[in-house]
Amino acid sequence: MIIERISTGVEGLDAKMEGGLPRGSVSLVTGKTGTGKTAFSSSFLYSGALKGEPGVYITAEEREEDIKGDMKAMFGWDLDALEKKKLIKFITIKPMFPGKAITGDEVARLIKLYIFDLSSKIESAVKETKAKRLVLDSISIIEMFIKDEYMCRVAMIQLTDKLRELGVTSMLTGTVSEASEALSGGGIVEFIVDSIIKLDFVPVAEEFKRTLTIRKMRRTDHSIYIHPFDITGTGLKVIEIK
Amino acid sequence: MIIERISTGVEGLDAKMEGGLPRGSVSLVTGKTGTGKTAFSSSFLYSGALKGEPGVYITAEEREEDIKGDMKAMFGWDLDALEKKKLIKFITIKPMFPGKAITGDEVARLIKLYIFDLSSKIESAVKETKAKRLVLDSISIIEMFIKDEYMCRVAMIQLTDKLRELGVTSMLTGTVSEASEALSGGGIVEFIVDSIIKLDFVPVAEEFKRTLTIRKMRRTDHSIYIHPFDITGTGLKVIEIK
Amino acid sequence: MIIERISTGVEGLDAKMEGGLPRGSVSLVTGKTGTGKTAFSSSFLYSGALKGEPGVYITAEEREEDIKGDMKAMFGWDLDALEKKKLIKFITIKPMFPGKAITGDEVARLIKLYIFDLSSKIESAVKETKAKRLVLDSISIIEMFIKDEYMCRVAMIQLTDKLRELGVTSMLTGTVSEASEALSGGGIVEFIVDSIIKLDFVPVAEEFKRTLTIRKMRRTDHSIYIHPFDITGTGLKVIEIK
Amino acid sequence: MIIERISTGVEGLDAKMEGGLPRGSVSLVTGKTGTGKTAFSSSFLYSGALKGEPGVYITAEEREEDIKGDMKAMFGWDLDALEKKKLIKFITIKPMFPGKAITGDEVARLIKLYIFDLSSKIESAVKETKAKRLVLDSISIIEMFIKDEYMCRVAMIQLTDKLRELGVTSMLTGTVSEASEALSGGGIVEFIVDSIIKLDFVPVAEEFKRTLTIRKMRRTDHSIYIHPFDITGTGLKVIEIK
Amino acid sequence: MIIERISTGVEGLDAKMEGGLPRGSVSLVTGKTGTGKTAFSSSFLYSGALKGEPGVYITAEEREEDIKGDMKAMFGWDLDALEKKKLIKFITIKPMFPGKAITGDEVARLIKLYIFDLSSKIESAVKETKAKRLVLDSISIIEMFIKDEYMCRVAMIQLTDKLRELGVTSMLTGTVSEASEALSGGGIVEFIVDSIIKLDFVPVAEEFKRTLTIRKMRRTDHSIYIHPFDITGTGLKVIEIK
Amino acid sequence: MIIERISTGVEGLDAKMEGGLPRGSVSLVTGKTGTGKTAFSSSFLYSGALKGEPGVYITAEEREEDIKGDMKAMFGWDLDALEKKKLIKFITIKPMFPGKAITGDEVARLIKLYIFDLSSKIESAVKETKAKRLVLDSISIIEMFIKDEYMCRVAMIQLTDKLRELGVTSMLTGTVSEASEALSGGGIVEFIVDSIIKLDFVPVAEEFKRTLTIRKMRRTDHSIYIHPFDITGTGLKVIEIK
Repeated sequence: MIIERISTGVEGLDAKMEGGLPRGSVSLVTGKTGTGKTAFSSSFLYSGALKGEPGVYITAEEREEDIKGDMKAMFGWDLDALEKKKLIKFITIKPMFPGKAITGDEVARLIKLYIFDLSSKIESAVKETKAKRLVLDSISIIEMFIKDEYMCRVAMIQLTDKLRELGVTSMLTGTVSEASEALSGGGIVEFIVDSIIKLDFVPVAEEFKRTLTIRKMRRTDHSIYIHPFDITGTGLKVIEIK
Repeated sequence: MIIERISTGVEGLDAKMEGGLPRGSVSLVTGKTGTGKTAFSSSFLYSGALKGEPGVYITAEEREEDIKGDMKAMFGWDLDALEKKKLIKFITIKPMFPGKAITGDEVARLIKLYIFDLSSKIESAVKETKAKRLVLDSISIIEMFIKDEYMCRVAMIQLTDKLRELGVTSMLTGTVSEASEALSGGGIVEFIVDSIIKLDFVPVAEEFKRTLTIRKMRRTDHSIYIHPFDITGTGLKVIEIK
Repeated sequence: MIIERISTGVEGLDAKMEGGLPRGSVSLVTGKTGTGKTAFSSSFLYSGALKGEPGVYITAEEREEDIKGDMKAMFGWDLDALEKKKLIKFITIKPMFPGKAITGDEVARLIKLYIFDLSSKIESAVKETKAKRLVLDSISIIEMFIKDEYMCRVAMIQLTDKLRELGVTSMLTGTVSEASEALSGGGIVEFIVDSIIKLDFVPVAEEFKRTLTIRKMRRTDHSIYIHPFDITGTGLKVIEIK
Repeated sequence: MIIERISTGVEGLDAKMEGGLPRGSVSLVTGKTGTGKTAFSSSFLYSGALKGEPGVYITAEEREEDIKGDMKAMFGWDLDALEKKKLIKFITIKPMFPGKAITGDEVARLIKLYIFDLSSKIESAVKETKAKRLVLDSISIIEMFIKDEYMCRVAMIQLTDKLRELGVTSMLTGTVSEASEALSGGGIVEFIVDSIIKLDFVPVAEEFKRTLTIRKMRRTDHSIYIHPFDITGTGLKVIEIK
Repeated sequence: MIIERISTGVEGLDAKMEGGLPRGSVSLVTGKTGTGKTAFSSSFLYSGALKGEPGVYITAEEREEDIKGDMKAMFGWDLDALEKKKLIKFITIKPMFPGKAITGDEVARLIKLYIFDLSSKIESAVKETKAKRLVLDSISIIEMFIKDEYMCRVAMIQLTDKLRELGVTSMLTGTVSEASEALSGGGIVEFIVDSIIKLDFVPVAEEFKRTLTIRKMRRTDHSIYIHPFDITGTGLKVIEIK
Repeated sequence: MIIERISTGVEGLDAKMEGGLPRGSVSLVTGKTGTGKTAFSSSFLYSGALKGEPGVYITAEEREEDIKGDMKAMFGWDLDALEKKKLIKFITIKPMFPGKAITGDEVARLIKLYIFDLSSKIESAVKETKAKRLVLDSISIIEMFIKDEYMCRVAMIQLTDKLRELGVTSMLTGTVSEASEALSGGGIVEFIVDSIIKLDFVPVAEEFKRTLTIRKMRRTDHSIYIHPFDITGTGLKVIEIK
């Protein structure tokens, strides 16, 4: 059985995972703040768009203009132009304060509605754009919204199953706090995704170093090394150690 | 007294446990995400099916087609064909959102119903297929559903007693979070099972290593070593150290 | 004042505690899962029965047939035969789900009833069999049932006082979770018992080692060493270091 | 100003604290289970009684006969004889289950009553026996009963003030759990007492060692060493290091 | 694309971040108590004012006169004179006790009002003074006020979006407790800001050392070193290591 | 700008902080039990009184006679005589049990009243005695009384602002538990005070050592060393290392 591979768009990374992410799989890109998760997932959509594969970028926390501005400033990528060519579609699902306090009795129903609504938005965008790639940045605020551990696990299962049904290759970004060794803020989504790529920024003596690890990847004989990793003027890059 | 042994299907492992798992026992296969628990328990059913022993695979989180696809991609195993020959039966018990919030007064009753229902499904499937082997992947979402520690322990006792009554040799998979040294997510099921096999994926210098430990096994003089362990193109394998 | 000593039934252990457990005392046998607590307490009853001292085994979690089967398989001990000779009596107090949720107002009353009921069962069994030895396996599920720390301490005081009144020499088994350095799951019973024997299973380099420590023992000048400890084909054994 | 000193009754210890405990002070004797707190506080009363100073022993958890039996077995001390000579008086304040659940509104009132009642019992016993020394074994169950941190601190202040008013030199015993570095179970009483003596039982390589530290003592230039400490056939003893 | 850079006012620091903070960005200045956060953010406003760029200083905890007095005493800076010249405007938003307890149902509404009110005050002050720079000292008390993690994240997103809309370059100060490795007290704001500058005061042998780290900065190839850092008689200074 | 300095009364310490505490500032003297906080703050008032500067000592936990007795016994200081000369005034604000349970709705109002009442008592005492120095021993019980983190921070701000308004130079003592690395029990007051002096008692090999650290001090170029520190027969003393 041959697994179709989707390039990550990160220099030197595809070779560490038999050529790329399995088509249709759901990956978690996880790391502390400032480790490059947004740049990583933008690379994924950008490199796809350059090959003519449409992508959807769902932003739940940052403003579209900030993401676009960052990519332009750091790497010279013109996401606006790609959006005009219908190769990247941005969707903002800014979280809102609940209209009123939610009583115990309505929590389950509200979460069901929330996940249903998010799934519908994703489905429309994917169908409309014929997207092959999708980024959901970040999953963490959804984990925070659904406080109950069991309901969070159910919600994550339903959401990732929907993504797999749609056939898109997806990246979810997840944030972990500074002092944490965890793979995700809520400790749930890590069990549901097909792949985990962990970005880190670790103090070594008087300096910080960037690293990237493929923590798991289904159907793939992936690298088990902790790779040095760099953010250069043209994009992200795994550094080869001779 | 001679204990009948059931092969694990993992190369090199039976020799570490007097020939295999005690027939009729309940094992916990535990580990962090990406340590190979699903592949491990699939090996167990697959190797049984090849010898004509029917098995039941109950999946509570992953989709049947994903498990089947993974096994085909990684090891070339055709679980679909075995299912058609009635040698492996897949049952999906996808967790659902509760219809409405559960008030304090109904929790005990609901958990009783849940365990009764799960036990009934297991019983029917085992009887229908004359299964000798069973996998429940994973027990963790059940632990999450039953939040109360005491009620979880009672539920686990009832569930494992039912499995022992049915005479199947069972494997439960359990997930632990990345930073945890625990044997199970809820810290309960580890006391109830007959055997624990722990899979790990641990950083050693700039690299990750896979290991397998038999943490306990009733009626068995088992290995007490931390074994290096590999996932190869043909299945799982304990690496012998000369 | 001469303290009468009761042999533990574990090879090499009595010599570490002035000849054995003080008659009428209550001991806690504590350890993580798979450290041999059930085998340890069975040795105690078995060796007593061989000398004609009747014993009571109260099992709160495992099935009688599993305990009996384990002892037969591991050590060739025929507990069934001893039960027929009225030298060992098994009592099962399988924990049940509460019939309905317990409101705040009924908790204290329910716990009082629970302890009263357990004490009565113990008293009848001890009187009926003229038992000299008693095992309660395990105390942990009782600690879990009584969630309140203060009420748990009161319950443990009442239960151990009852055992002392009855004149039996008792062993309670207690489970601690894998990553814990605690002496008991709830952190209460350790203060109430007369003796604590801690079994451990600790990783040393690439291997696990079994150890036994006498953590406290009233009226006894006990060993303060961490002893290597073995489970052999004929029973448990403290390994002498030359 | 000359501080009158009361001997601890522990060989070699008075010399580490300018001759003994300040008359009228309240000390906490703290340690994990099995570190010798009961033997320590019994030494204090026993040595006082031998000099004709009456003492009161309040036991909140252990049975009088067990304490008396232990002291006889370990050190040959006949506390019964001293009780007959009215030199030691034992009072048992076994904790009970509350008659019914305590609602929020009654907690403060109940705790006030509890402390008032305990103080009255102490006052009567001290006045009746003209006690110069007092042991309260243990303070921990009282800390557990009063769950609220603020109310616990208030209760501890009132209780120790009462002891100071009565003019007795007091020892409270406090238990800490195995893995804890704390000075008391609830983290409150340590701030309220005049002195803290910490007993420990610590693993050193393959062995456990007993130690004693004077952690604080008002009006006293006390030792700041961690002293090796022994329980011999005649009593407790601080080991002098040459 | 050229990013306009705003000097931090800290000697030697701009060179570590391509010339300064990106215009319009929101930075978090984080550290334990006494690490110099107020001096750091005052430097930022002071250096701007000297170049004719107006700034707003919002103080939520300290008194205006204390901040002004500190800057005068430490560095000789006359913030009062700058305020008279309308180059720095101080606003005090001292937190108040809620008038009455807030029931579950009003929490969301109250937080919305709170953030709306704070945003309005900021908007008026920025527009009135034509401010280019803004300091909010500290964000931590706002995190404490909004206890719910999800609502805190939403509030932080709305607040920082407002600051970006207004076009000011902003610094938020955040406090972390002594023993913490976290980047912010509530663990939320660190994910929302564009830049994080971490000040520290760490024990090295018998001495404490001040350090500064640029933990993240959008659109900037920033230093990844842990820089020694000093508070001198004329201001803050990054120490160059030869 | 010249900062007026108030001597701490501790030998060798003023030289570590440009001559003393800034007049009118609020300091936190923090440490575990038995580290000398009461002696430290008494030195401050005593040395002031000797120069004719009146001081107020507010004790919230210890009895006046105990503090006076301790100072006499340890250092020969006659605080009673100074109180008669109206140079030191003791005020006891012993914490009481609440009359009845406080419902959610009254918490905010009760805390406001509590802080208002404490502030009034302080104001009267300071005005009556024309105090220049003030000690509040300890702030920890107030932190415990106000459980809510946000309200505690507000209360601490209001209390310290009141002290600054009154013009007294103040010391608050704060207790931290044994195993803690925190600067204060509740983790709040450390952010509100102008200075923090940390006393410690740390195990070094087989011995405990006393140390003193100036953790922060506004408007002051203070020592950043961890100083050995001693309690001698005449008072407290920072030990100079050659």
